Amino acid sequence: MAEHLDDPLSVLAEAPAFGALPDAVLRRLARKTEERTLPAGTLLFEQGATPEHLHVLLDGQVGLFGTGSDGATTTVVEVLHPIDQFILAAVLTDAPYLMSARALSDVRVCLIDARELRELVSAEPQLAVAMIVSLARQYRMLVRQVKDLKLRSTAQRLGCFLLALAREQNTPRTVRLPYDKQLIAARLGTTPENLSRAFAALRSHGVRTSGALVNLDDPQRLAAYAQPDDLATG
Amino acid sequence: MAEHLDDPLSVLAEAPAFGALPDAVLRRLARKTEERTLPAGTLLFEQGATPEHLHVLLDGQVGLFGTGSDGATTTVVEVLHPIDQFILAAVLTDAPYLMSARALSDVRVCLIDARELRELVSAEPQLAVAMIVSLARQYRMLVRQVKDLKLRSTAQRLGCFLLALAREQNTPRTVRLPYDKQLIAARLGTTPENLSRAFAALRSHGVRTSGALVNLDDPQRLAAYAQPDDLATG
Repeated sequence: MAEHLDDPLSVLAEAPAFGALPDAVLRRLARKTEERTLPAGTLLFEQGATPEHLHVLLDGQVGLFGTGSDGATTTVVEVLHPIDQFILAAVLTDAPYLMSARALSDVRVCLIDARELRELVSAEPQLAVAMIVSLARQYRMLVRQVKDLKLRSTAQRLGCFLLALAREQNTPRTVRLPYDKQLIAARLGTTPENLSRAFAALRSHGVRTSGALVNLDDPQRLAAYAQPDDLATG
Repeated sequence: MAEHLDDPLSVLAEAPAFGALPDAVLRRLARKTEERTLPAGTLLFEQGATPEHLHVLLDGQVGLFGTGSDGATTTVVEVLHPIDQFILAAVLTDAPYLMSARALSDVRVCLIDARELRELVSAEPQLAVAMIVSLARQYRMLVRQVKDLKLRSTAQRLGCFLLALAREQNTPRTVRLPYDKQLIAARLGTTPENLSRAFAALRSHGVRTSGALVNLDDPQRLAAYAQPDDLATG
């Protein structure tokens, strides 16, 4: 975990979505903000609940889970990394959550009072624009995911996932899987069995696994097969 | 097509996202708004282009298409119905389109100048809030679609699609398919061959097709199988 900042104002000032706001706005938000450190496995909120806070993830990983209307089947819609705020669309429109959030590791979050945030958004154009930028980024991440689910095979999706990890981890030829294979399968919209088949299919494109480590012997060949997005428009 | 309104101000006032705005704001937007009637098949903009206008769909249907980075494979991310604005996330952040838009029927659209819209959003909190509401709604539609793609089989997705059409068309036991089966397959994230198999699988749940008409003999049985979303939180 990064250094611990107790002052909500300093915490908010570090968050890209809030950092550029005028001091007066940040101070008003900070008065209605609390910081929490929570253990892995904590349920932060449940699908169907009305949002009480905007969560800002400062350290750790959070999974956003969607449950089918039978109440039994669950999938991972997104895995969030610091610093990100969730779930803006529900909080800003005071609508029931479409997903549940669970800490996938120990996490540090700050909680901004939802009602205060909505009031400030209506009064402060700069905050409104910051929220539009953040919401638009999240919308575009989902567009990329829908295209990924509809245009690529499971093995291609896995290839893109590994190439993205290599870029994030700044290690072009070795990546560490950031969470277990069941979660990776759900994030990629497949079953653990099909994920194993996809790993096997990628062997001929230079992908070798050893526990949580994955070697990419030939990233260019893998990219030619998996067709990752152009960063700007993919 | 509905009656033709030539005055951009009246057109904007009819759009849910803009109708509640103060007159002065509407008037400023209307000065930079043009109305167009375009034939089926028109490409409204291409993936990768920088947005020049926010499009407001007044009549007809528009498909948002995503193309893979190989440039060859294309899918349908969303089919839009009046009145809807697209693509807010790209226009409001001046970012390249992640999807192309094509008229699926003859359409009537109005085009709001993108730069003027962004300037007004920064200056007018009520417009900013209206854009947040619209963007949040579109984000939540994509969340529903990701959950649909990850949690349901193709036959269940088709069942939910038919039940939604029945609700929209207000005809619980007969629906008219709104576009061709290739487009329906892409919208549901499958191939035309798998769509045919899904129609066949739904026969035992009371679904009978005859051209573009589909009979739902037992909507409750179909719903028990397809598990459509709860409207509030699904």
